[in-house]
Amino acid sequence: MISSTRNLGRSCQRNSPFEGAVFVLTKCSACGSTFPIGDYDHLGEHYYKFAEESDMAHVMWLNRYITRKKTENAKALSKILSNYFDLGSGGLQKWIRLRFIERFYGSHPHPFVVALQHPTRATLLGYVLEHQHFLRQWVRSCSYIMAKTENTDVTMYELDNINTEFGGYSPERLSHYELLLRMGESLGIYRQKILSTEPLPDTKTSLKTWDELAKNEHWVETMTAMHGLELIADRTLRGDGAVMSYFDPVILNPKDREVTDATKDFLREGYEADVGHSKEALDLVEKYAKELNKTEDVQATFLKSINVFHRYLMARLQRAEQLESA
Amino acid sequence: MISSTRNLGRSCQRNSPFEGAVFVLTKCSACGSTFPIGDYDHLGEHYYKFAEESDMAHVMWLNRYITRKKTENAKALSKILSNYFDLGSGGLQKWIRLRFIERFYGSHPHPFVVALQHPTRATLLGYVLEHQHFLRQWVRSCSYIMAKTENTDVTMYELDNINTEFGGYSPERLSHYELLLRMGESLGIYRQKILSTEPLPDTKTSLKTWDELAKNEHWVETMTAMHGLELIADRTLRGDGAVMSYFDPVILNPKDREVTDATKDFLREGYEADVGHSKEALDLVEKYAKELNKTEDVQATFLKSINVFHRYLMARLQRAEQLESA
Repeated sequence: MISSTRNLGRSCQRNSPFEGAVFVLTKCSACGSTFPIGDYDHLGEHYYKFAEESDMAHVMWLNRYITRKKTENAKALSKILSNYFDLGSGGLQKWIRLRFIERFYGSHPHPFVVALQHPTRATLLGYVLEHQHFLRQWVRSCSYIMAKTENTDVTMYELDNINTEFGGYSPERLSHYELLLRMGESLGIYRQKILSTEPLPDTKTSLKTWDELAKNEHWVETMTAMHGLELIADRTLRGDGAVMSYFDPVILNPKDREVTDATKDFLREGYEADVGHSKEALDLVEKYAKELNKTEDVQATFLKSINVFHRYLMARLQRAEQLESA
Repeated sequence: MISSTRNLGRSCQRNSPFEGAVFVLTKCSACGSTFPIGDYDHLGEHYYKFAEESDMAHVMWLNRYITRKKTENAKALSKILSNYFDLGSGGLQKWIRLRFIERFYGSHPHPFVVALQHPTRATLLGYVLEHQHFLRQWVRSCSYIMAKTENTDVTMYELDNINTEFGGYSPERLSHYELLLRMGESLGIYRQKILSTEPLPDTKTSLKTWDELAKNEHWVETMTAMHGLELIADRTLRGDGAVMSYFDPVILNPKDREVTDATKDFLREGYEADVGHSKEALDLVEKYAKELNKTEDVQATFLKSINVFHRYLMARLQRAEQLESA
C-alpha cells in the first residue's frame, strides 16, 4: 500500500470515489493537471507526490490498478505506470480484454458473476430490476455515438446494436430488453411492477456517469466505455485467462430445470451475441483510436467505465439481497 | 415594409441572415432579450423598437413572417404577433402544417418544388448530391433525440425512422439513403463519385445549423425541427391548401418514361412514407410539447428549421444549375 487514505480533505472528493482519477494520461481529473501523451516520467512524479500526501483519489486509483505497495521513488512508479499502459504485441483490444479480466474474472471474480453461476430467483430478479434501467441508458449512450460520429461503419454498427438490444427485429428476434422483461415475468413479477420499479441509488449514479461520459467525451471513448462492457458475457475470455464464464453454461441445457425457459432465452442471447458485439465494436475502436490519436484517452476512459460497471453489478446483488430479506 | 435594412451595424449579424431572430417567444436571439411565454405586449414593443431602428435581423424576421407593412404602433404589432402564434382550434400540428404550406406551397412555391414537378436530370442529380449529406446529418440529429429522451415511444419512433431512412430493413425494404444513391447511379453517376462529392457551402451551413440545434436544444424542439420537414413530401398538405404536391405523381406511373425506374423507387418511398412519418412525429411533438410546456419554443424552433430548409433546397437547385452550365 503506497500510503493510507486518512487525508481526505483535498479537492478530490467526488460523488463517487471511483470518479476523478482515471483520465490520467492526458489529464488528471483529480486536480486538472495535464500531461503530454506518453509522458510517464511526469505522470509518475505527479502520482508519487499525491500518494505521499495521502490524497484519496490518486491513492485509490494506484491501489486498484497499479500496486498496493509503496514504490521506492517517482521514477519507479513511472516505470510501473508505463508498463501498465503499454499495449504490448496484442494491441489495444487485447489490453482491454486483459484489464477486463483482471477486474471481473481474475483471482477475485466479481461477486455478481459468482452468484450468476447458478443463480437464485432473487439474483435473477436483481438482474431484471436494475438492468432494465441499464438498457435504457445503453440506448442513450449508443445514440450519442451515432449523433457524433461521421463514420458510416460506426453508425451502422450502433444502429444494429440498438436494434438488437432495444428495438428488436421481429417476433422471432426479440430485443434483449424484451427478453429481460420476459425473464422477470417468468419469475413471477408483473411487467408493470418491473417497469415502475425505480433503480437503486448505485445504479442511478452509475447511469448518470455513463450519460455524462457519452454527452461530453469523444464518441470513440464512449464506444469503448459501453461496448467494452459487453465483454462480461464474452465466453472467449476464458482463453485469455478468465477463471470462469458469466454463468455456468450447463444451466442453458434444455433438460436442466435450474432456471426458467425465459431465463435461458435471455441468457442465451447474451451468450451468443456479446462475443460478436464486443469484438466488432473493439475492432472499430482500435481502428479509430489509432486514426484519431486517441488510444490513451480510450484506455483511461475504459478504466473509468469498468469501475462504474463494477459498482453497477454490485447494485444488482444489493437488490437481490433486499428481495431475499424482504 | 416596416423599415429598410440599411442599418446593419448592430449586434445582429450572424453567419446566416436567417439565424438569430427566431427564438422570439422566450428569447430574442438577436439581442438576448427574454420574454415570459405569451407576453406579446412586450414582444411587440421589442420588435417595434428594433424595426424603427432598422435592425436587420428583427426586420427580416418580421418581413418574412408577420408583415411587410409598417404597423401603426407597438400595440398593433403585438396583436399581429399574438395572432400569428395562436394555435387556433386545430392545435399545434395544424399550425405547423399551415406555416409549412405558407413557406413552401403557398402563392410562391419553393423553386425546387416547382422544378421537381417534372424534373430534369440535373435537378435530380442536384437532389442526390446534396441530399446524401442531408440524410447523414438526419441520422445524427435523430440520434440526438434518442440520446436525450427518456420516453420509449419517442425512442422507438426515432429508431424506426433511422432504420427506414438510413439503415434499411432488408433487401426488399432498402433505406431511403440507398434508394437515393441508386437514383444517382441510374442517372449515370458512379456511386463513388457521388459519395466523394462535398456538399455545397449552403448545404454545409444548413447541416451545421441543424447539428447545433440538435446538440443544444431540447429533444422535442429537435423532433419538430427535423420531422416537420418531412411535410415536404406529405401529399395530404393539398387538403390544407398547398398549391401543388412535391412532384407531379404522374411521373410515378409505370408507363411514364419521364424518369428512371430508380428515380420512381426513390420518390415513391417518400411519397408513401413521409405522410405517416411526419404525422406520427408531430403527434408525439404535440403530446410532449404540451406536457413539457414547450409549445412556444417548438413553434419558434420550427420556424428556424424551415428557414434553414428553404436555403438547403435552394442548394439542390444551385447544384443543378452548376451541372447544367458545366
